[in-house]
Amino acid sequence: MRSIRVNRNYSTKTVALTAETYSDKVKRDERFKKLEDSDLKFFESVLKDKNYLITNEDDLDFFNEDWMRKYKGQSKLVLKPKTTEQVSEILKYCNEKKLAVVPQGGNTGLVGGSNPIFDEIILSVANLNKIRSFDEVSGILKSDAGVILENADNFLAEKGYLFPLDLGAKGSCHVGGVVATNAGGLRLLRYGSLHGTVLGLEAVLPDGTIYSSMDSLRKDNTGYDLKQLFIGSEGTLGVITGVSILCPARPAASNVAFLAVSSYEAVQKVFTGARRELSEILSAFEFMDGTSQELTRRYLKLDYPIESGDYPYYILIETSGSNKEHDDEKLETFLGNAMEEGLVDDGVVAQDETQLRNLWNWRESLPEATAHWGGVYKYDVSLPLKDYYKLVEATNQRLSERGLIDLDDDSKPVVEAVGYGHLGDGNLHLNVAVREYNKEVEKALEPFVYEWIKEHKGSISAEHGLGFQKKNYIGYSKSDIEIKMIKEIKNHYDPNCILNPYKYV
Amino acid sequence: MRSIRVNRNYSTKTVALTAETYSDKVKRDERFKKLEDSDLKFFESVLKDKNYLITNEDDLDFFNEDWMRKYKGQSKLVLKPKTTEQVSEILKYCNEKKLAVVPQGGNTGLVGGSNPIFDEIILSVANLNKIRSFDEVSGILKSDAGVILENADNFLAEKGYLFPLDLGAKGSCHVGGVVATNAGGLRLLRYGSLHGTVLGLEAVLPDGTIYSSMDSLRKDNTGYDLKQLFIGSEGTLGVITGVSILCPARPAASNVAFLAVSSYEAVQKVFTGARRELSEILSAFEFMDGTSQELTRRYLKLDYPIESGDYPYYILIETSGSNKEHDDEKLETFLGNAMEEGLVDDGVVAQDETQLRNLWNWRESLPEATAHWGGVYKYDVSLPLKDYYKLVEATNQRLSERGLIDLDDDSKPVVEAVGYGHLGDGNLHLNVAVREYNKEVEKALEPFVYEWIKEHKGSISAEHGLGFQKKNYIGYSKSDIEIKMIKEIKNHYDPNCILNPYKYV
Repeated sequence: MRSIRVNRNYSTKTVALTAETYSDKVKRDERFKKLEDSDLKFFESVLKDKNYLITNEDDLDFFNEDWMRKYKGQSKLVLKPKTTEQVSEILKYCNEKKLAVVPQGGNTGLVGGSNPIFDEIILSVANLNKIRSFDEVSGILKSDAGVILENADNFLAEKGYLFPLDLGAKGSCHVGGVVATNAGGLRLLRYGSLHGTVLGLEAVLPDGTIYSSMDSLRKDNTGYDLKQLFIGSEGTLGVITGVSILCPARPAASNVAFLAVSSYEAVQKVFTGARRELSEILSAFEFMDGTSQELTRRYLKLDYPIESGDYPYYILIETSGSNKEHDDEKLETFLGNAMEEGLVDDGVVAQDETQLRNLWNWRESLPEATAHWGGVYKYDVSLPLKDYYKLVEATNQRLSERGLIDLDDDSKPVVEAVGYGHLGDGNLHLNVAVREYNKEVEKALEPFVYEWIKEHKGSISAEHGLGFQKKNYIGYSKSDIEIKMIKEIKNHYDPNCILNPYKYV
Repeated sequence: MRSIRVNRNYSTKTVALTAETYSDKVKRDERFKKLEDSDLKFFESVLKDKNYLITNEDDLDFFNEDWMRKYKGQSKLVLKPKTTEQVSEILKYCNEKKLAVVPQGGNTGLVGGSNPIFDEIILSVANLNKIRSFDEVSGILKSDAGVILENADNFLAEKGYLFPLDLGAKGSCHVGGVVATNAGGLRLLRYGSLHGTVLGLEAVLPDGTIYSSMDSLRKDNTGYDLKQLFIGSEGTLGVITGVSILCPARPAASNVAFLAVSSYEAVQKVFTGARRELSEILSAFEFMDGTSQELTRRYLKLDYPIESGDYPYYILIETSGSNKEHDDEKLETFLGNAMEEGLVDDGVVAQDETQLRNLWNWRESLPEATAHWGGVYKYDVSLPLKDYYKLVEATNQRLSERGLIDLDDDSKPVVEAVGYGHLGDGNLHLNVAVREYNKEVEKALEPFVYEWIKEHKGSISAEHGLGFQKKNYIGYSKSDIEIKMIKEIKNHYDPNCILNPYKYV
């Protein structure tokens, strides 16, 4: 898999202020105090080094803007504490003074969750960047929140272990950030969600209390599992400063196969077959529709991985195991059966590391390919597998009925709505590639897409989270009772609402 | 693995009332109302059938007593609702009237968590016993809470799937009960904890609110993951009525090896080797010390599984995979290497299903064997692996220093302190086999054992929970801050404290 160090596209225009773009939807909460010189003096006294405070306008941009350059806040201050105790002192002060705070990790989120909207103070954990310990017998890693995911994984690789989560932004995102956002990524099918692999957390509550379950072992049945609340809370309940996580042994062998399939029914059968026959070595099952391939082909100016080209559905299967020979044999048998049963029409299996990387690169180029025509409306959703692809069909039909879509006619605003994603987890990325952002298209898509997902009992955010972008849409995935309970938890831990305001709930 | 339908030993004496045995530690909370005829009338009107209310003294015993016949409550009423709505009506009423309630599943717990102490009403979910749905593509099972674990697993077996948790009491315990107590059991090493596999819950809060996340998919990042609070809350926050859980494909092949090892250092090396070489097929790694084997041999009147007998440590390794031939080869290679390196002194591998069952039976007879001499003090703990076995040594040393222990001398109260457990999860069962329960022995053991565990950063309850037994010892595993946060959550959801009082926190 590719490791992407998130490089921003500074060639694009200045980023509009979120507060202005969404002036109809969000106003500054006047309960929050504005930053004063006395506050700065206090923070300097806590951090003891002026380098850990950023107030220079140019330097602030990096923290105020998200990496897609879609959102921009107006913070005048970034704090970069070196210790958990400093985080505690900062939050306690902010809570007492009612200064709003946005916790920030690697700032690689896709929903504007780690950037301020107005003048919130940015609390970056980038300086909490030490690996605390690793137990080579149990595989338990204890790490500061600000350690970059790729650094943690490289550290583990030397010990023969693996971080149980992987994603494109691994070169920039933080260990604490992926936990705070409950990131999913590429290894979830095999190693499960962070709710299962995270054993303990250290987090600072808004009142400065340091909660720690860092010493927790694999099994501990004493009391409510409080750390779970912080996993996926997107910085609205506390600031995660440390993570203890159970890491699996690094697989010795990997295989990748790229398959062409003629019907969605066959896709489902290939998936259940893979779960059964590849079972313990199946580590990824990625789905791509034919039009996503066509856009990728045009964008990369490369041939299809499967030369015979032009099937309605494609699948990328990855296996990871401890014995190359066994894995090869399992994969061959599985593919042989699938072809014999007529489920798979054509396919290729990577013969070496380069081919393996090329196949993953093709899969991972899909997001860029769909954005290449001028813009893209992105929906990251979960759906029951039987309805998984119907959302893409329904979206194309709707855009077609409104005369908005054509793959080759440049006078139409929409190029194509394509679908791809981690089918093994029920996670679909619906990407609507457009030639231009357009109010008519937006009206055709929303709330249509959200309503469709709700009707089919899906989730409007499978892995990207709510952040600022989806704050107002939570009702499409959660009942009134759940939303009420979520708000109660927020009020319980953060009664002054100083943590990451204007977002999440 | 054996399936044990929990049969009580009714030959033993009458069970003493918990309230009398522990009269120095617990008093009835007089804020709770006593049951009146008008309450019975209300419950009858809700349940609509007199068979769903149990008030007969003899019938009540089954629900008042725990299956070890160690605890006994004095409830005058068991309610067995048929629907979640009835559970809601009952709790709402009890909350308003301040009637205390003990939720009960299969009543197979080991810490007295599912039995009343005084006159609490018992709310049994045994009549909520339907499998709601199963999706053969995603492997998601939706079940009522009162479905017996073995029934759920048999249902899944027919579909080629597996319940991701297994334990000795599977013939009696409920799906809802294992979630409410966050049971660990025999498959945790392979399939992870319930915090990762449970996708959604339906639970009734004390005020009658029905919380449901039953439609949640494998990935859903919208809002705090509230269901996590109920996993392991032992009926103190709400009554679980439905469970949605992700089930893996049922493995086609199983192997079991039984190994003799000369040093604890070698045990750890065998474990890390198994994680590396057996990797994806390793499904159990069970540790047993030599004296636990000696007690088992005397109790079962059988030869050791390994004829050359008498090693200080033994290991049972299980593999589960999709290809018998591959698994055999991996296991053979692994064992060959371990023997060549001098880590393993002797061993046997099950050659057929009968031998496989016999080896598991031997392992699973350990608890009975240690209880066979008159009584047993049981400690279910988690410890970092480097200190895992030192607790057993320290306990034996302490008992020896006080002249309390001798394997063959019947005048000493203690036979032996032995250790065994799920080493793969860091979970040790310290069992102190005694000829009689004895205050001097108890004083030698407690708080010594708890203090030792705290000092070595372990957990005083790895999988059995807190219940009534360990309520007062939570401070040995959790900090004051954590305990405060746990109590706040309890007060938040159950301000009248009607759910499972006198326990947990």
